[in-house]
Amino acid sequence: MTERESVDTASASGVGRVETKIARISLPADGFKLSCGGVLPALEIAYESYGELNARKDNVVFICTALTGDAHAAGYHTSPEQDLGWWDAMIGPGRGIDTRYYHVICANILGGCKGTTGPASVNPETGRPYGACFPVIHVADIVDAHCLLLKHLGISHLAALIGGSFGGMQVLEWLVRYPDMAAHAICIATAASLSAQALAFDSLAHTMITQDPGWCDGDYYDQSMGPAAGLAHARQLGHITYLSQEIMMSKFGREQRDQIHADLSTARIPEFQVASYLDYQGRKFVSRFDANSYLRVMTAMDHFDLKTRSLGGLEEVLRAVKAKVLVVAVTSDWLFPPAQSKELAHALLRARKAVSYCELDVPYGHDAFLVDIDNLVSAVRAFLPWIADEEDRSRDAMMPRDTPDFMRQSLPDMIRRGARVLDVGCGNGDLLTELSQSCAIVGSGVDIDFSQVVEVMNRGHAVVQADIDDELALIPDDAYDYAVLSETLQVVRHPRTVMASLLRVAPECIVTFPNFANYQVVGQLLLRGRMPVGSALPFSWYETPNIHLFTLLDFESLCAEEGWCIEDRVYVYDDPLGKFLGRLGLPNRGAARVIMRVTR
Amino acid sequence: MTERESVDTASASGVGRVETKIARISLPADGFKLSCGGVLPALEIAYESYGELNARKDNVVFICTALTGDAHAAGYHTSPEQDLGWWDAMIGPGRGIDTRYYHVICANILGGCKGTTGPASVNPETGRPYGACFPVIHVADIVDAHCLLLKHLGISHLAALIGGSFGGMQVLEWLVRYPDMAAHAICIATAASLSAQALAFDSLAHTMITQDPGWCDGDYYDQSMGPAAGLAHARQLGHITYLSQEIMMSKFGREQRDQIHADLSTARIPEFQVASYLDYQGRKFVSRFDANSYLRVMTAMDHFDLKTRSLGGLEEVLRAVKAKVLVVAVTSDWLFPPAQSKELAHALLRARKAVSYCELDVPYGHDAFLVDIDNLVSAVRAFLPWIADEEDRSRDAMMPRDTPDFMRQSLPDMIRRGARVLDVGCGNGDLLTELSQSCAIVGSGVDIDFSQVVEVMNRGHAVVQADIDDELALIPDDAYDYAVLSETLQVVRHPRTVMASLLRVAPECIVTFPNFANYQVVGQLLLRGRMPVGSALPFSWYETPNIHLFTLLDFESLCAEEGWCIEDRVYVYDDPLGKFLGRLGLPNRGAARVIMRVTR
Repeated sequence: MTERESVDTASASGVGRVETKIARISLPADGFKLSCGGVLPALEIAYESYGELNARKDNVVFICTALTGDAHAAGYHTSPEQDLGWWDAMIGPGRGIDTRYYHVICANILGGCKGTTGPASVNPETGRPYGACFPVIHVADIVDAHCLLLKHLGISHLAALIGGSFGGMQVLEWLVRYPDMAAHAICIATAASLSAQALAFDSLAHTMITQDPGWCDGDYYDQSMGPAAGLAHARQLGHITYLSQEIMMSKFGREQRDQIHADLSTARIPEFQVASYLDYQGRKFVSRFDANSYLRVMTAMDHFDLKTRSLGGLEEVLRAVKAKVLVVAVTSDWLFPPAQSKELAHALLRARKAVSYCELDVPYGHDAFLVDIDNLVSAVRAFLPWIADEEDRSRDAMMPRDTPDFMRQSLPDMIRRGARVLDVGCGNGDLLTELSQSCAIVGSGVDIDFSQVVEVMNRGHAVVQADIDDELALIPDDAYDYAVLSETLQVVRHPRTVMASLLRVAPECIVTFPNFANYQVVGQLLLRGRMPVGSALPFSWYETPNIHLFTLLDFESLCAEEGWCIEDRVYVYDDPLGKFLGRLGLPNRGAARVIMRVTR
Repeated sequence: MTERESVDTASASGVGRVETKIARISLPADGFKLSCGGVLPALEIAYESYGELNARKDNVVFICTALTGDAHAAGYHTSPEQDLGWWDAMIGPGRGIDTRYYHVICANILGGCKGTTGPASVNPETGRPYGACFPVIHVADIVDAHCLLLKHLGISHLAALIGGSFGGMQVLEWLVRYPDMAAHAICIATAASLSAQALAFDSLAHTMITQDPGWCDGDYYDQSMGPAAGLAHARQLGHITYLSQEIMMSKFGREQRDQIHADLSTARIPEFQVASYLDYQGRKFVSRFDANSYLRVMTAMDHFDLKTRSLGGLEEVLRAVKAKVLVVAVTSDWLFPPAQSKELAHALLRARKAVSYCELDVPYGHDAFLVDIDNLVSAVRAFLPWIADEEDRSRDAMMPRDTPDFMRQSLPDMIRRGARVLDVGCGNGDLLTELSQSCAIVGSGVDIDFSQVVEVMNRGHAVVQADIDDELALIPDDAYDYAVLSETLQVVRHPRTVMASLLRVAPECIVTFPNFANYQVVGQLLLRGRMPVGSALPFSWYETPNIHLFTLLDFESLCAEEGWCIEDRVYVYDDPLGKFLGRLGLPNRGAARVIMRVTR
């Protein structure tokens, strides 16, 4: 991959010692109004920042935190061993969000308990903690508060917004509520709304906290305990949902500890290791988090629903978006499953937005964006905008290298300048780069391979990670002027369906394929009695990806059957005899490869 | 499907009115010994039975219940509307377990609270409920108790054992603890041991019950409440895991009720429908189930682990099995995922047992075996033995119908009488039936299609539902004498890998395939310039399942490269010219199809 100068992250020291600052936000006389109708008379927001703000103030990346996150995203307060920020591996010199170029801000959320105004804060009107009186908050209120923080800091525009899980929901809210604020946005492992299963888990967590005898209707701050057991149980439940089945098995298996269940005392029944883990997580959480805050932010998450904000559904809501968006899913995430990220990407595509989509294929479950971030770092680096303080984008990265001559020569004649082009099976984006230089196209790609998708983003094109056979449905009707399918039709499982999809997403498609009626191919079969192997078909029969061989005539016949028009044809000859056959009017015998421009 | 005379189940009345009986088991003077070392001085078991016991007492099917099930599996106590048995759709005249032929027994489990001795039973030594003093029980104790019940009823042999979920674990325990007891066994949506995730859910449920202030260390029977809230929460958690994400979304979605959260009273926050559902399930459970019983049976399930009983692992443990086993998984079950059922089937195959495996592809999650049982009914009917009281197996069902002549004529010459034969891609089992009649083979099949698998079981063969490309690893090395792959090599994605798998599971394989060098095929390509379509290759290029075309010579060359020996060849000619070319010594030009016997 060609990318910006990178630092060896293993030895890099990150952003070093940092501190959490508290911003006291100036409010109008009638206070900070909430979407529920309530009002907060005062507002404090805890935040941290890393990297230098440049003179134009156009290099700010704002990080939206997850449900129980805090402002301390990177660096350390005391020592790197004791209190490293929750996303330190992502933020720093040479890391995913490179602090040599970006000024990074992360803030605690409204309703939280880490320095930003929340239920445990003192209500200035009573002199006592809000407790149960703290109003219901929604994601819009969290974003409004952070918007005031940025204003307070003199920042009126963001280079990028980024957030995972509940943080991704905040990013979405930013995009539709303040569409002019950010140029780029990254939504990781998130959803336009929680699934019924996730709601069920949250509802049970809610019940466990509020049915704890220590709950006292939320006014437990005078008590010694509060709803400690219920809060611990709720957090344990959360932790089960943050890990995949696979990673839980490999971390804990069925290992047992010697400690026995206190209540089954008639026989020594050892406790499972996973129970100890949950117990530890529950106790740790109770010591660091406030039950009222947990309920408030969980309620905000549960009731976040972009889909129902307009009769036109998610697509209609996302029409407001102006940023370029990257949606990232985790394959093993069952709390925010990839289908929800795809739904987001699909709606953005239908709303005609510049969207990229990729999947982290790692076993860690929902927590992957926090614990295994090498791939995420590379995707974030590739997607984030190159800002003016950086050296220009490397010339090398923008040089097309792999596109074969016959395509480089023919395609510019078939494609209008400035057209929107989708390259299906785009590989590393070489053809898109070629066409953006020769025809000034606005290019997007589809590819199944994550590392190729990262490379395409690095070259500045939008790209969707998808299986051509199963997932072209993700691309909406008529989203492009041209769909290009280069040397790929013969490797898909359902060629006719794929062709139909191409002509659904664009009125014209350009297809190149090897011609199985070529004299060399038929000659090999005839003379040797063997499946042909050669330049256009280089694989043995038992390992070839070319699973649907066909001839020029076969393709023409399919087009005729389906009523598709072949507007242009280019025959590619490998050798003089082939060319001669072509001159004799026998392109089906002579051509090794064919380029067709087809319209519906 | 050819099957036994069936009754229209929709209009059938089932087994009618039934009652739960209590068996007082005679115990030796030193009581009923438990595997934990404890002893129960008395033992009562609640059970029901349906259908007539025949004179030979060889028509008994014993049903093992799930975690919180009871003896009332079929029929009704008061009225069909009020209290239908929990598996009524499975049991009755013309149903999956046909009570016109079978005598069906279902019993409540030891440690339960539905009539069988459990923690709420009165301890004869104290005159008070056992409560916390009830000993820890294991699945072995549950099975031992049921074994005593059958002895009490004069039954020494079972036609079949069947159970889902925790019931499937009991079936497995029966199979290794009393291997001579049952001739057939069906394990549905179960596992050799719980996954770490399932243990995590159970551990949290355990904690929620025992940290409830009403728990009183298990001696709560004098209290009015007991640990009602903890038990309700535990059950709610269970219910989330019993449903798939998909079915939860389609049942409840994000629908809301008007009722507001009592604790977020500063704004009307409606409650989600799924929360009401869970609340209802929790309250219903508290009214019907005892917390001590729930803990005891959950502990028995958590600590059930067939894999660690022998240093040789699951395969070694399952060597004891004598029954024919059917393992059934549910694709959408994430509590007992299909991988665990496959692990069971794989270990049984490695232990050289007669095992069939199939998957219910329904969206209902773990509960599928209770709520959507049409497919399960057909699989159970097909797998259960035909007993002597029934008319003989229909002649028609055993008549091969579809095997082409060239295979019927050639294969008996290639296969030793009495051999073990695996037919990979066996379809409806026609070839297996043919070969079992002509060569007395012991046949097994592999097919990807559920309805075909049911048909194969109905014809009396073992069969594994699997994708040839991905899942032949399920079949252990050298499990068969011959592997047959008929007209299928050209449809798989990885022909060489599949060939290697065939020669791994058997020392010899028999392969039939269409020959792409056949003069008619090459002729079409040469003369028409189109991909050939004909009798051996009947599909258009864009929809053919034949994705790896190859010639007789190609196949011979692959065998030579891999060091496989071609022992027999049969060339199948479609027409006189083909036959003539064959006589000229040009089988690669003349043969339309080829049969090869290959050894490694």
